[in-house]
This record gives sequence, structure tokens and C-alpha cells, in this order.
Amino acid sequence: MNDFYIDKLAVVGVGLIGGSLALGLKAAGVVGQVVGIGRGLSNLEKALELGVVDAFTQDLAKGVADADVVFLATPVQSLGSVSQQAMPHLKPGAILTDGGSVKQAVIDAIEPSLRDDVHFVPGHPIAGTENSGADAAFATLYQQRRCILTPTERTAEVALEKIRQMWQIVGSQVEIMAVEKHDRVLAAISHLPHMVAYALVNAVGAYDRYDENILAYSAGGFRDFTRIASSDPTMWRDIALTNRAALVEMMEQFENFFAELKEDVASGSDERLFEFFRRSKQSRDEII
Amino acid sequence: MNDFYIDKLAVVGVGLIGGSLALGLKAAGVVGQVVGIGRGLSNLEKALELGVVDAFTQDLAKGVADADVVFLATPVQSLGSVSQQAMPHLKPGAILTDGGSVKQAVIDAIEPSLRDDVHFVPGHPIAGTENSGADAAFATLYQQRRCILTPTERTAEVALEKIRQMWQIVGSQVEIMAVEKHDRVLAAISHLPHMVAYALVNAVGAYDRYDENILAYSAGGFRDFTRIASSDPTMWRDIALTNRAALVEMMEQFENFFAELKEDVASGSDERLFEFFRRSKQSRDEII
Repeated sequence: MNDFYIDKLAVVGVGLIGGSLALGLKAAGVVGQVVGIGRGLSNLEKALELGVVDAFTQDLAKGVADADVVFLATPVQSLGSVSQQAMPHLKPGAILTDGGSVKQAVIDAIEPSLRDDVHFVPGHPIAGTENSGADAAFATLYQQRRCILTPTERTAEVALEKIRQMWQIVGSQVEIMAVEKHDRVLAAISHLPHMVAYALVNAVGAYDRYDENILAYSAGGFRDFTRIASSDPTMWRDIALTNRAALVEMMEQFENFFAELKEDVASGSDERLFEFFRRSKQSRDEII
Repeated sequence: MNDFYIDKLAVVGVGLIGGSLALGLKAAGVVGQVVGIGRGLSNLEKALELGVVDAFTQDLAKGVADADVVFLATPVQSLGSVSQQAMPHLKPGAILTDGGSVKQAVIDAIEPSLRDDVHFVPGHPIAGTENSGADAAFATLYQQRRCILTPTERTAEVALEKIRQMWQIVGSQVEIMAVEKHDRVLAAISHLPHMVAYALVNAVGAYDRYDENILAYSAGGFRDFTRIASSDPTMWRDIALTNRAALVEMMEQFENFFAELKEDVASGSDERLFEFFRRSKQSRDEII
């Protein structure tokens, strides 16, 4: 990894995800120039002022020209069109990679227009905070976080290795995973919990037996538990829609477990309830 | 409230809940003597050593004798039998109160054996941490937390007022509430979320499509979200069993919302999904 270097990195979407990659690579001294590309002028100016990027443009074609690595960090639903627009302007041998939370849909959106002389490495750094925008970015966001890469049949080994090293340099633990497995695992550990949290808040919020909003009685536990229900509705609509098959499968699995639990409560099955709770506590205690 | 004073307080179950009340009242200088009553000798010795109690006994009859206020802080399922055993030994005019998480079941367990010359004020301080035992207790646990009191037809106004003041003195915001409403509200904001968290961890943990445990991929979000699934299985079995009717009703309400959401994901209803998530985010943002 000693000779890793990116002469020019283009970051499309200079927010928390894109900006933090730029800052991490800059901190490691392994990038020559970072060009930020986006639509919002004030965010790009802020990124320049904060040293997240060395230059910026609102012109995608100009921004990606001559870039060795192009990191797409825009919303999942936009990755296909952004990639298509950038494609004619990429230099031969350039590596395109992304940070989308779902992978099959992104691959399906990008590969049909992928040039033979451009590499594409689908990726997903599992990191984030509640904040967004260039001023939320920080160099250590990816340290000790997992980053999953899901190469396709068209992904060249040399490009995969370069992007693997890139994420390792900013501190991530990189996993190479089959696309389908990524989407199923993320449906289980991330997308399903968000659906559960959103449904829980709506179910409790809709409780209209009393004249007051009973959410007002919620203590710290409920607020902590439902924190992810405050996530961005647009982003989660897009994730739900682009990972539908895997997500519906996990939602059904959850429904089955919840229905079993409800039956045990309704019938007062004390031993089964204890065992259900014990098993859950044990599973969770093992991962912390 | 200036003349509030308890000459002798008996605390049955000297753990986080009982011990913190004792410490809070001691800190306020409004209690003469605190006697701790429990089964585990080492916990009682620790409570004495830490100054949570001034004396202790494993003999319930002796411990409650001459007490002006008896606070029952043992598990919900035990409150009926503890109360029955203590009843013959309470002094005339004594106030019995409890901290159980469900109220109708506790009232049903205690009132049939309640003497006419003893007061009973059912209560529920909504507070807690992950820790338990006398060494987890601290004087400020109840500050700025809600405490709900659910008087019955037999609860005398003077006893209710005394217990209301007691909780205010340790910093709680006291609400007087109908028993049924308490149990429904708690089912919604506390018991249902626990059921959801337990079912979620079991559903994800049971996912066996791959050879590895996919819980290992879970990041901070999943761990935070499922923290309450590490709660004590015995305690939650008891809460689920003693608040069955209200809990099952809320579980069904949640199931309906979750099923609606699943249909919208499955059918790719983008506008409905956005609206579902937006509504949830708005509800939650309003309570923080």
C-alpha cells in the first residue's frame, strides 16, 4: 500500500459521505487534487473554505475530466443518471465507484452505460451521522467502520484493489461481498430496523383513545429507540424502493416473529415469552 | 410541602428503584430512618455500607413494623404476595405504595387483602437505567422524570397527597392518572417498543441464509436501536403477562401499520412511502 496515490479525485456530492472520504485521503497525504462537484453553490463554497475540496464546479463534465477516481456520493436514485452524464467525459482507465446503500439497483443503473475502458467498483461504506452537508464531513468518519465492496463480473481486479486500498487508508475494514448478499444483509441490519422504527412511531402517534398525544409521555427509552425514525424520508423512500425484494423478505420474517410473540402474550405463555426474550437478549449481548 | 416528613420508611427491594427513592429522600432531609428489606444478604449489606439504608432485615414483618410509608420495589409479579405477607404487620394509618410498571394487575393483587386502616397508593416512577442492585442507586434518578400515580376508589386523598409530595421532593413531575389509561399509555410507549425490539433481534438473528451470523455486520445504529432488547427477560415476561390486554391491543395496532408499510414497499408506492416516513419523522421530531 506504500505506493497508493490518486492524482485527481472527483467527488460528486460533497456532503458527509463524499466530503469525509476526501478529508480522510487528504489527511493521509495520498491525493493530489480533490475536485468537488455538486448543484448547490453555497455547499461547494463551504467545502472549499473548509478545505474539503481544492476546487469545485457545478459542471459534471468538467469536474470528472482527467480524474483518476470518481466517487459518486449522491442519493441512490440519482446514481444512474449521474453516471450516464459523466460517462463520455471520463478518461480511459478511470475508476468510478460509489457509496450507495443498496448495490444491485445501483449496478443495474450504471453498468448498461459503462464504457469498456472505464472501471466500476460498487461500494458501500457503512458509516454516517445525523448530520449532512460539507460542513458535517470529517476525516475520521470511516475509521473502524466496515466498507463493503461488491464487484461484478466486469470489475477488474486492479480497480477493485485500488478502491479496497483507498478505504483501508481512511481506516475502514473492507469486505468483498456478493451483491445479493450485501443487499440482503443490509435489508436485515439496517433497512428493516428503519421500517420498524417508522411504523412504531406512526402506530403510537395514531393512538387516539385519549384527547392528548400520548407520545408526550415517552421517556428517554422511547426517544432513543425511535431515533432512526427521524431519518430523511426521501433517502429512505429511495432505499426502500431500490431494495424492495430483500426488504420485503425481511419484513415478512419480522412479521412472523412478531406474530409469534403476540400469540404468546395473548395466550399468557410464560415459558415461551421468557425464552423469546432470553434468546433475543443473548443474541444482542453477543454483538456488543 | 414544608412540613413533609417520613419518620420511618421501609423499602422492600433495595435495588435501583427502591434505593434511589431512599437516597433522594435522605438527600432532601425528609426521612428519619430507612429500613431496607430484601432476600439477598450481600445486597442489603452493600446498601447499608453505601448509606442507602440505615438498617436492614430479611424479615418482612419486622421491617415494615412501625413504618409510616412502605415502598414496594420488588418485581411486578411478586407485589401481591409481598403485600399480603406484610399486611398484618403494618401499623394503622401506614401508607403502602409501589413502583410497578403495570397498575391494574398490581391493584388486583393488592387490594383484596388491603386492611381498611392501611392506605394504598399505586404508583409508577418512569425512570431506570441498565443497572440494578443497591450499588446502582443514586439520589438524582428521579429528577425531571415523570411519576404516575393511579389512585383507586379506596385511595384516601391524604395518602395520595403524601405520596405525590414524596415524589415531587425527589424531583419527579407527578401525574395523577386513571389506572386503565396508565396501562394503555405504558403499553404504547414502553411495552410495545420492547416487544418490537425483541422480535427484531430474533428475526435478524434467525436469518440463516448465510453461514455466518449477520448480526456481526450490525453497526452502531442497529446496536443503539436494539439496546432495549438486552433488558431483563424475567422482568419483561412479567410485564407482558400482567398488561396483556393493553399490550395485545397495541401490538395489533403496530401490526396494522407495519403491514400497510410492507404493502407500500412491495408495490413500490413512492408517494405513500414518502408520506409514511415524513409523518413519522414529524411526530418524533415534535417530542424531542
